[in-house]
Amino acid sequence: MCEANAYFIKDGEEVLIMESVDVVEPEGEESWQLVSIFGDRKIIRGRIKGMNLVSHRIMFEEKTD
Amino acid sequence: MCEANAYFIKDGEEVLIMESVDVVEPEGEESWQLVSIFGDRKIIRGRIKGMNLVSHRIMFEEKTD
Repeated sequence: MCEANAYFIKDGEEVLIMESVDVVEPEGEESWQLVSIFGDRKIIRGRIKGMNLVSHRIMFEEKTD
Repeated sequence: MCEANAYFIKDGEEVLIMESVDVVEPEGEESWQLVSIFGDRKIIRGRIKGMNLVSHRIMFEEKTD
């Protein structure tokens, strides 16, 4: 399975938002809906800072502009 | 390996942009840099329409607003 873990990066610290994320979809402006392989859903405000799929990582950060 | 294929969706048609994408990073406003597991790099203008990691798919679309 190729799900990823989603993190929020703030002040250089990583906070795990959700494990085993399958789906990521935009939810209006600068928000994202995450859906895990277990069907859990979460809305994240912020923007995507980067993704490393081979490392199973999706990083979000606060929108600053 | 958990890389994904990146597609651009336009008028309901899918065009394959890059196979075996590992890294996705924002590149300024509404552009994204894709890096494959082979080290190929490509800059895509548009926004993320959605990702299905278990299906190895990242979909981009034109920014319309």
